[in-house]
Amino acid sequence: MRTRHIVQPIEETLKHPGFEERNKLYEAEAKARVPGVIQRALDDAELLTTDIDVIIYVSCTGFMMPSLTAWLINEMGFDSTTRQLPIAQLGCAAGGAAINRAHDFCTAYPEANALIVACEFCSLCYQPTDIGVGSLLWNGLFGDGIAAAVVRGRGGEGVSLERNGSYLIPKTEEWIMYDVKATGFHFLLDKRVPATMEPLAPALKDLAGEHGWDASDLDFYIVHAGGPRILDDLSTFLHVDPHAFRFSRATLTEYGNIASAVVLDALRRLFDEGGPEHRARGLLAGFGPGITAEMALGRWHRADETM
Amino acid sequence: MRTRHIVQPIEETLKHPGFEERNKLYEAEAKARVPGVIQRALDDAELLTTDIDVIIYVSCTGFMMPSLTAWLINEMGFDSTTRQLPIAQLGCAAGGAAINRAHDFCTAYPEANALIVACEFCSLCYQPTDIGVGSLLWNGLFGDGIAAAVVRGRGGEGVSLERNGSYLIPKTEEWIMYDVKATGFHFLLDKRVPATMEPLAPALKDLAGEHGWDASDLDFYIVHAGGPRILDDLSTFLHVDPHAFRFSRATLTEYGNIASAVVLDALRRLFDEGGPEHRARGLLAGFGPGITAEMALGRWHRADETM
Repeated sequence: MRTRHIVQPIEETLKHPGFEERNKLYEAEAKARVPGVIQRALDDAELLTTDIDVIIYVSCTGFMMPSLTAWLINEMGFDSTTRQLPIAQLGCAAGGAAINRAHDFCTAYPEANALIVACEFCSLCYQPTDIGVGSLLWNGLFGDGIAAAVVRGRGGEGVSLERNGSYLIPKTEEWIMYDVKATGFHFLLDKRVPATMEPLAPALKDLAGEHGWDASDLDFYIVHAGGPRILDDLSTFLHVDPHAFRFSRATLTEYGNIASAVVLDALRRLFDEGGPEHRARGLLAGFGPGITAEMALGRWHRADETM
Repeated sequence: MRTRHIVQPIEETLKHPGFEERNKLYEAEAKARVPGVIQRALDDAELLTTDIDVIIYVSCTGFMMPSLTAWLINEMGFDSTTRQLPIAQLGCAAGGAAINRAHDFCTAYPEANALIVACEFCSLCYQPTDIGVGSLLWNGLFGDGIAAAVVRGRGGEGVSLERNGSYLIPKTEEWIMYDVKATGFHFLLDKRVPATMEPLAPALKDLAGEHGWDASDLDFYIVHAGGPRILDDLSTFLHVDPHAFRFSRATLTEYGNIASAVVLDALRRLFDEGGPEHRARGLLAGFGPGITAEMALGRWHRADETM
């Protein structure tokens, strides 16, 4: 990790002003920063707010009811009939889950467009009194980030989603979790988590197999794993060249682990590289609490190719 | 409201042992009570846990990450590939949202089955120091309840879902909300909320109109509104006989406002009454923070009728 972005100066971040104040900061920072990120995603997709049918907002580092979706609809002029799907409890897997639920929605309604937003201010969950190994890892790895993307029922450029799936490693629901206290969300990380790529790799292979693909032999990989060593493990167990995970690695290096936003930022890097060739086959995946993998398979679609 | 069920004795409920302890109680009570409710829903649908493709778990009265879905998959033997969709931020509208997202999922995958669970322990959000009018209303109206139902892609008996929609009343995102503090979730209710059936009735009419139906002239209504007077208002603005809301009214009378679970309990009462005739047209709706309405239209399907 070379650099990280955090919403407050480091001296403020290291203080704990209380859960109430933290959560007010979450709301204020989200309102200040999210609309601009959404606007860029809409502009890139050449869509207006009124073209969006569902907003899937994933965030595990602050809690608001109603979700920010209600404010966004009012503030940015989305239609009053826009569906709201806020997800707060899938942690780092939520970026993948957002893509997958958007894919489901557009499968049900092929004329629809889904907006995905991942907003994570991990620094607002820093707990100065937590000095266990898992907490020290969290503090060292995590960063703040916001990402947004549009999943279109038809058209556009990028990954044409073909199949998605979820996998829960049995009996691991306590390995990545929040302890919820008066001081807010306390991140607990079991020391067995770094070894989970071994049981998760077969789940990726199974999903690819159901699709007639070989997970070890795809053209691109957009994966969110917690840190660079876990990516190395995945490349070992999946028999994939570590270079394939360069997008995820670059996100971790430049921003730290920005939780559910990693997978969307890594995907942006694939776009920035010019994207693979038309109909290149790829895998998207995020891993998080549960321990849950949210996985998707798709082909790259270039807008300059005819359908 | 004649009776209410609460998870603890009243003297314990009126104490506040702290957010951490409250949330541990939420988890313990949910683990003790939810599996039995799910099992009855599966038995009624004549399905096994392994027939379920997605679990949509809605709850706004406790916060766990991972969601209870991970524990349920392990504990009850759902497939490891079951999708998890936990929603914590739609409050009382979440029962309708769960039905609608299950409908979307089964529209995308007609062979799939979705399990919906609503688990609300409103008594664990009782805040002894909140003595505003909204809080007193909350304390007087709310109860604890759990409900579960299955939405099948094909077959079964009950509402065959045909269309769903969402509507946000503009600029009302602060009218029903949680103030998140060290003491947990504090429910805030604006005094303008009871008057919201006037702007919501046209949204119900619009959705029905898009479907070629008249919202004032349907065969059954399963609606969750916060209290009996709001139901009276809805019957006025929708031009529907108050008797049509007898299921919702019975739930409120016997259990209090059990938040996202109301719509599922009211639907159970329609089943218990024997159900309407085959192909009877109906409306399901829940209202909650946003202010959001989650609405669905469908026809009653009797299992003894051929398709």
